[in-house]
Amino acid sequence: MTPDISKEMLDKEIEKEADVLLHTLFPICRSLTGDGVRKTLRELSKMANFAIKEIPSGTVCYDWTVPPEWNIRDAYIADSKGKRLVDFKKNNLHVVSYSAPISKTMAFDELKKYLYTLPALPQAIPYRTSYYKKDWGFCLSYEQYKMMDRQERYRVYIASTLEPGSMTYGECILRGTSGKEFLVSAYCCHPSLANDNLSGIVLWTLLLRELKKRKLRHSYRFLIAPETIGAIAYLRKNEKAMKKIAGGFIITSVAGPGKFGYKHTFLGDHLIDRAVHLAFRDRGVDYVSYPFDVAGSDERHFSAPYFRIPMGTICKDKYYEYDYYHTSLDDLRFVRARYLVETFQLYLSAIENLEMNVTYKSLSPYSEPQLGRRGLYPPLGGFQKTGAGTPREQKIVSELDAIRWLMFMSDGETSLLAIAERSGLPLRDLYQTAEKLQKHKLLKITNKT
Amino acid sequence: MTPDISKEMLDKEIEKEADVLLHTLFPICRSLTGDGVRKTLRELSKMANFAIKEIPSGTVCYDWTVPPEWNIRDAYIADSKGKRLVDFKKNNLHVVSYSAPISKTMAFDELKKYLYTLPALPQAIPYRTSYYKKDWGFCLSYEQYKMMDRQERYRVYIASTLEPGSMTYGECILRGTSGKEFLVSAYCCHPSLANDNLSGIVLWTLLLRELKKRKLRHSYRFLIAPETIGAIAYLRKNEKAMKKIAGGFIITSVAGPGKFGYKHTFLGDHLIDRAVHLAFRDRGVDYVSYPFDVAGSDERHFSAPYFRIPMGTICKDKYYEYDYYHTSLDDLRFVRARYLVETFQLYLSAIENLEMNVTYKSLSPYSEPQLGRRGLYPPLGGFQKTGAGTPREQKIVSELDAIRWLMFMSDGETSLLAIAERSGLPLRDLYQTAEKLQKHKLLKITNKT
Amino acid sequence: MTPDISKEMLDKEIEKEADVLLHTLFPICRSLTGDGVRKTLRELSKMANFAIKEIPSGTVCYDWTVPPEWNIRDAYIADSKGKRLVDFKKNNLHVVSYSAPISKTMAFDELKKYLYTLPALPQAIPYRTSYYKKDWGFCLSYEQYKMMDRQERYRVYIASTLEPGSMTYGECILRGTSGKEFLVSAYCCHPSLANDNLSGIVLWTLLLRELKKRKLRHSYRFLIAPETIGAIAYLRKNEKAMKKIAGGFIITSVAGPGKFGYKHTFLGDHLIDRAVHLAFRDRGVDYVSYPFDVAGSDERHFSAPYFRIPMGTICKDKYYEYDYYHTSLDDLRFVRARYLVETFQLYLSAIENLEMNVTYKSLSPYSEPQLGRRGLYPPLGGFQKTGAGTPREQKIVSELDAIRWLMFMSDGETSLLAIAERSGLPLRDLYQTAEKLQKHKLLKITNKT
Repeated sequence: MTPDISKEMLDKEIEKEADVLLHTLFPICRSLTGDGVRKTLRELSKMANFAIKEIPSGTVCYDWTVPPEWNIRDAYIADSKGKRLVDFKKNNLHVVSYSAPISKTMAFDELKKYLYTLPALPQAIPYRTSYYKKDWGFCLSYEQYKMMDRQERYRVYIASTLEPGSMTYGECILRGTSGKEFLVSAYCCHPSLANDNLSGIVLWTLLLRELKKRKLRHSYRFLIAPETIGAIAYLRKNEKAMKKIAGGFIITSVAGPGKFGYKHTFLGDHLIDRAVHLAFRDRGVDYVSYPFDVAGSDERHFSAPYFRIPMGTICKDKYYEYDYYHTSLDDLRFVRARYLVETFQLYLSAIENLEMNVTYKSLSPYSEPQLGRRGLYPPLGGFQKTGAGTPREQKIVSELDAIRWLMFMSDGETSLLAIAERSGLPLRDLYQTAEKLQKHKLLKITNKT
Repeated sequence: MTPDISKEMLDKEIEKEADVLLHTLFPICRSLTGDGVRKTLRELSKMANFAIKEIPSGTVCYDWTVPPEWNIRDAYIADSKGKRLVDFKKNNLHVVSYSAPISKTMAFDELKKYLYTLPALPQAIPYRTSYYKKDWGFCLSYEQYKMMDRQERYRVYIASTLEPGSMTYGECILRGTSGKEFLVSAYCCHPSLANDNLSGIVLWTLLLRELKKRKLRHSYRFLIAPETIGAIAYLRKNEKAMKKIAGGFIITSVAGPGKFGYKHTFLGDHLIDRAVHLAFRDRGVDYVSYPFDVAGSDERHFSAPYFRIPMGTICKDKYYEYDYYHTSLDDLRFVRARYLVETFQLYLSAIENLEMNVTYKSLSPYSEPQLGRRGLYPPLGGFQKTGAGTPREQKIVSELDAIRWLMFMSDGETSLLAIAERSGLPLRDLYQTAEKLQKHKLLKITNKT
Repeated sequence: MTPDISKEMLDKEIEKEADVLLHTLFPICRSLTGDGVRKTLRELSKMANFAIKEIPSGTVCYDWTVPPEWNIRDAYIADSKGKRLVDFKKNNLHVVSYSAPISKTMAFDELKKYLYTLPALPQAIPYRTSYYKKDWGFCLSYEQYKMMDRQERYRVYIASTLEPGSMTYGECILRGTSGKEFLVSAYCCHPSLANDNLSGIVLWTLLLRELKKRKLRHSYRFLIAPETIGAIAYLRKNEKAMKKIAGGFIITSVAGPGKFGYKHTFLGDHLIDRAVHLAFRDRGVDYVSYPFDVAGSDERHFSAPYFRIPMGTICKDKYYEYDYYHTSLDDLRFVRARYLVETFQLYLSAIENLEMNVTYKSLSPYSEPQLGRRGLYPPLGGFQKTGAGTPREQKIVSELDAIRWLMFMSDGETSLLAIAERSGLPLRDLYQTAEKLQKHKLLKITNKT
């Protein structure tokens, strides 16, 4: 960071960039495969470069097979006068994702078997998919549906292709020195849905860009791929490396108007969970705590018995929890770039907590060292509860607690994160004070990991 | 079960049988030993056959000795006109259990040393015993006591015998295949007291009959014996077998009008406790949780340091907790056969939970398997929070959670009971879904125990 | 204890002794070193003899060095007319402890850099020290400070010496038989401050005297030394012995008007913490529970990584928590000898709990033994919830619970303290009942420690 730009200004800058990206990418029709995903990843990689890779259709990945590539040019339902009542070009949610091509005229009674609505949210177009069963269909608002003429014969047209091709994903590995590697994953298969998960892939890219600027202790494997089949294909392709991953994050639904939330890893109290909790605590932000659930995103694959990678998710308006989830109402009016940046800062803090989680060993283990002769203790002792002291004394006293906890707990096995939990002191303060104590030869680092 | 009889009708049927048994057995004068116990066990064994066995008086069992056999034909206190004021034939609680024979006339002032009342419940005859100290006495309501003529000389008559004989108990072992054995115990030594423990021995018999009909995974050792000396003599006689018991139940006080309760095993979180908790949870029944206490029934023997068998007790109006405990007011008006059957269902559920506590290992451990091509996933994906779907889809979705938890947690070490606890899903649902997944070759059983 | 003196009379007696000691010792000017400490220790050792030892100035103790010996004869600030405005002879808090000698006249503006006040408590003289930085200064109430003439030139006089000498401490080791040793420590370096920590050193002495009268199972190492440097020098001098200490107490602030409190050891649930909790519980006294904190007294040295001795502190008005802490208002009007004796009884109970924490093994492990034939069970059984029984029966019944818990839990590994925690019964009752059961050959001791 350039020192002459304040943190707040930087956040404003990032907010603007996020907003541009949200608007650029929202209209693109993404799915498991196809040019919409390719275009999205190319656009994101302009902000933070990462490799864009392809896995051919038909590739077997454990219990799964990469499906044919799907592309779509146009689709509509028109009445006998040629008026398009439902038009893919107006909203790509109108077509069931992976719909097979069709060009046919049919009575309403036949057509209605292929129509999907959401009576509970009559203005919303629902989001539906049929990846693995060859089918076709249209989604429309219940209000549109009610207005359709039951006697009319409709022209149904889907100009899609389902052909051998490939599935596209993005990957970037940032190498640290500790030998420990974390996974940062987001899924890019959703069409025009803003919070789930356009917001997630934008945050993922901001995070990648930010970490690229830094000297890192740990390695971070950034993966952006379609949900389920993308994650599974990646696991298959990188089985050995993925078996060694220490934990990670799935970034999704991060820019809604609701509360911050955290979905725990399947372990519940893993390093990832603790790093996230301290990120919230030290930033003074409240959050809704969601226990692990098998329903969700790719954590049930990454954390499956063979891999058991603990994956956590910080979100703002968690998927499932908001009414507009998986409907056309999850649009750019629902999300805010500002919320996205707030969640970004929380992810960044959590990762910084992993970075700062060093373990020290006291070089003065027999008792507290004499801090006074090192200028780490106020010259005059005997402070009262109500006592004041000079500003310099105040400053020394304010650091004294961190020094004492560090000297007391640093037995070579207790990490800074554990000390932050026990003492209630911010991890960053402990980290900075520990570095100072190291210079005073009172602490030495015992872990590189 | 015959498929044309509803569960509710069956419960009604059982309720009637229980009611008949309660009325048949209530009047019998039971004690540690004697013909009352024999008659009771013979009656019960008509409903569910079990072996009736005898241990001779004088048999040494660890720190204890089986006492002489006690039988009683008649007993009363009569006034000088021959009028029976206190009459064993009206209520067998009137005689202190194990009273030695006596035939004597004495002044009230002498007699009163042998009279037991309960001023706090003036209409109740208390229940008192003198098993190991040769003594005699009468119990009567405080109201009766107050009306006795202090100047009268009373005739006291107890036609009892205390002679070498034997102690009677019942036993039935149902063999399963798992190699794991549980104990189901009830005590049969109480005279005309309905909740404690006539209700328990009736429930014990219903449970034995029900389990006899079933193919069982575990073995169940059913023991019905007098409290304390019966349990201890049985432990002595079956020391090796009892050392291997995995846990069990003491069935007592199961038909009162009060709340359901559960007295925990001494471990508190043993498999038995967990199976019982899920039985209550999955049936949607609330209960009072009682921690283990050394005061109680035979658990302090079965769970003594050498054996340490964890024993739990489901009850409805737990002993000690209701005012009529160990008094003549604990009679057939206090209990209900319907309550007894409700508690029976809870014991049965707890045992079914033990039976269903299988451990599976995922055969698709690298990620969630592809459920769709097995018909286990709705054809169209992308469900909204408020989404509906067809009835068939709804059905598939309703099982999806169970499938996912099973596939996620089945690592070959985590049992269905643990998955039920973690997921909040009913154990029975998980059990049935697991069997289906086994047919799909997605799970295999790893424990036989 | 003589049997004809009631416990309450004894407490009154001790209260009187404590009160005399408080008044005798309060005026003495104590510091890290010097004759004030020597005089104090000599006075205390009259009540309970202990060794008084010296460590020469300049002795290196780990990271620290024993400072020169400080003594002071007189000190004051006088105005130009010779009137003493601030006078050490009126209150020894007026001089910053370890002030170097000075004799000088100076303007108020220069003098004020050496003046310390407490505006938040305008009537209080604060307590300040400058042990390791050669300096001088005066402490005075803010009210005094405000009245000083800003135009006046003041005469400043401190007749102190800072010369090679020694640091004085007291020590007494009471030997028990268990091989386990506990530390009982108090710091004696504070000048005229009553609760912190004159009260502590008086209690320390009462406790030493009391334990000297007793036959002890464990060893107790009583240490009275200046805070920080005293503890550290002692650790250095007794490194091997201190490494073996099982736990201990730091006695401080024990006679204030506020609530009882307990500051936990760094482990939080160590034997020390459990013994203290039971002391409060069994005496029916509430207390404020303070978690371990690195800020405090010598626990951060005794519990430093190398030694890790768990140290707890029972207090009444804990240091830091009361407004008058480290000010002249913490005087003899603030404390009460009666409070001191109440806290003394709590320390004594905690130590008695350590003494009584024997582990037994049941000699009747197969079931509960037959208590009746040993006179440990009421002759007549079958007690009702509302039942009464004769006084003798009541007495037997009241002990029955203790007998049963002891027989049930005594597996040779579970100590009486654990049984007291589990059963809710007072540890003393269990201890006495266990001794009775041992006489009945139902229990045998398995630990000597």
